[in-house]
Amino acid sequence: MNNKFISNDDVFKFHENGKIAITSQSTISNNSDLSIAYTPGVGRVSMEIYNNPDKVWDYTIRNNSVAVVSDGSAVLGLGDIGPEAAMPVMEGKALLFKQFGHIDAWPICIDTKDTEKIIETVKLLAPTFGGINLEDISAPRCFIIEDRLRNEMCIPVFHDDQHGTAVVVLAALINACKINNKPLNECKIVILGAGAAGAACAKILMESGAKQIIILDRQGIINTERNFIANPMKKWLSENTNPLNIQGSIDQALIDADIFLGMSGPNLITRDQILTMSANPIVFALSNPDPEILPEEINDIVSIIATGRSDFPNQVNNALCFPGIFRGALDVRATTINEEMKLAAAKSIASSISGSSLNKNCIVPNIFDSGVAESVAKATMHAAIISGVARITPLSA
Amino acid sequence: MNNKFISNDDVFKFHENGKIAITSQSTISNNSDLSIAYTPGVGRVSMEIYNNPDKVWDYTIRNNSVAVVSDGSAVLGLGDIGPEAAMPVMEGKALLFKQFGHIDAWPICIDTKDTEKIIETVKLLAPTFGGINLEDISAPRCFIIEDRLRNEMCIPVFHDDQHGTAVVVLAALINACKINNKPLNECKIVILGAGAAGAACAKILMESGAKQIIILDRQGIINTERNFIANPMKKWLSENTNPLNIQGSIDQALIDADIFLGMSGPNLITRDQILTMSANPIVFALSNPDPEILPEEINDIVSIIATGRSDFPNQVNNALCFPGIFRGALDVRATTINEEMKLAAAKSIASSISGSSLNKNCIVPNIFDSGVAESVAKATMHAAIISGVARITPLSA
Repeated sequence: MNNKFISNDDVFKFHENGKIAITSQSTISNNSDLSIAYTPGVGRVSMEIYNNPDKVWDYTIRNNSVAVVSDGSAVLGLGDIGPEAAMPVMEGKALLFKQFGHIDAWPICIDTKDTEKIIETVKLLAPTFGGINLEDISAPRCFIIEDRLRNEMCIPVFHDDQHGTAVVVLAALINACKINNKPLNECKIVILGAGAAGAACAKILMESGAKQIIILDRQGIINTERNFIANPMKKWLSENTNPLNIQGSIDQALIDADIFLGMSGPNLITRDQILTMSANPIVFALSNPDPEILPEEINDIVSIIATGRSDFPNQVNNALCFPGIFRGALDVRATTINEEMKLAAAKSIASSISGSSLNKNCIVPNIFDSGVAESVAKATMHAAIISGVARITPLSA
Repeated sequence: MNNKFISNDDVFKFHENGKIAITSQSTISNNSDLSIAYTPGVGRVSMEIYNNPDKVWDYTIRNNSVAVVSDGSAVLGLGDIGPEAAMPVMEGKALLFKQFGHIDAWPICIDTKDTEKIIETVKLLAPTFGGINLEDISAPRCFIIEDRLRNEMCIPVFHDDQHGTAVVVLAALINACKINNKPLNECKIVILGAGAAGAACAKILMESGAKQIIILDRQGIINTERNFIANPMKKWLSENTNPLNIQGSIDQALIDADIFLGMSGPNLITRDQILTMSANPIVFALSNPDPEILPEEINDIVSIIATGRSDFPNQVNNALCFPGIFRGALDVRATTINEEMKLAAAKSIASSISGSSLNKNCIVPNIFDSGVAESVAKATMHAAIISGVARITPLSA
């Protein structure tokens, strides 16, 4: 929904006193209940875990709990507003985890922007959580933090701004390419924005067969002529995208492109620029809440347009991915969320639009469509088992 | 209830999958709700907090959330069982916070025993929580950690093993002394155990007028002849208790004592030792689940006996204190929990037994008695306001 149509009263009233709360899984009515729930009974459960550490997954909340971790340095499109101001967003995320994934997520807003301190803090919190969802941490620190935590922790660590976005973009593109009848590996793809989302999209699209990707940051097209010593991710992108190693701005990049992915900022693209793309282009203008270009400006000259907004068709919404992908990972106590799981999640989202429903205004499901998160969870779970990162195989698998 | 009477089946079934969960304070049914709860609506709330940091108390869970922090180094009577095995206890604590204080507490089990790292981690989590409940951290580190966090954070930090116990012990002793008709400041008090609970009891009793306290650790009576360079708390105790500076063991200490407080371990005291105390002694044998001496062994020779157990009369239970004291602190957004608030809480617990109900088998209320936590919250809140640590004064105060 367009921000302008929501009244301040409605918004602030909704957020009063926060959006989540703790509830007991069981009621304690008397001293007898208490002696089971707390001391002395609880001591036996603690000793069981002490003697058999794996039992922590059976007898604590860890099997269903995820930390939503942020330092508040890149919150939505608002920038570096700090950990306190990030809280409403992280609580909102926790709410979505619960509603769509039945997962108990708790916000952890960390009062530092020091990369090493963030890494250490999250690692020290491991005994409490079954998974870590990194959120709204600025690039390039987000890449380092995620890489290190993925390597040094044995629970899923998932930077949603990167991979949640990338999974849903891939899902939407699978369906868009099907409608356009041109396979992804033959498409020229232009990505505007080389932050968390742009970089992750480039990677997952390459893993899915895309061969011609050009990605741009504020300085223009990323290529090997530029110097990226301070930014290993951009260095990697310069070496692995842009096969013709072209230079220039978005004007040069868009000529004859089949797909445009905007993950940058509002109103950065014009109708004239879109007109230089190939016939029937696919345009994903995902800057939120204000897209790179509004659908009404280009509806007549594009094949398919998607945005991040719910008041236009084809909303590319991370919430289609993260509740299901974590649900699947937690259900098999996965040690990580790997590429296989992400690709499986993307395919599952894409195929949740049945052949007859698929059309240019319906390339991704709505998150309120029943069964989407469950399908993603199932696909993720199977991919985890097959790729060998599942600790258990549930009977239901 | 005695541990032996609880079946393993009942206990482990109760703890399966943990004991707490997240719930949404509001339902999200459609895209319109979502645009209020999450992006774009949430962005306005974040910006409001960014521009007016105090608004974090109005629009996030922070005004009602407490971290239950442990490193698992001194869990119940089980010792250093580590952060994973501590989880069931911290979850149990969260359950009690919710049930008796309507507070949303979340376990934070930290994977280090390094004092500085624990301090830093807790400080970095401040944006998320309105209060910190330290739990089951071994002495003397617990004193350093609490002192530092109290000084360096501007939200309540409360080590429940120290102060929760001390508050309830003081409440019970106020009533026991009333029954015995001998004021606290005339009583000779012996405390067995100079860990977190013993030290805090000594302090709060002195603040309440007690003048003759002897406290013992495993090596015997604490006095100024002994060397406590490595333990500032014991050094302080050696300088501020034991006015005659006597030496020796529990045998020497107990002679003519009016009050014995056991916060040590099971079966450390004999009937013969109790017989050396003054006439009509008060015995609090608080080691849990197995007391220093069982009530049935000394019922005929003592005036009053209290334990930590629910299957004997006079259960000294921290849960009488911590939910109410945090409720009161959170309701006025107190910057700390100070001595005035603790004393007010203790008096409130003591006076919740009305004159006619007060007898040697009823010196403290049961935590299931209605109104106890509410009274403690109210008393704490007023003490916070009067002592100048309240950020707000609610209309109800």
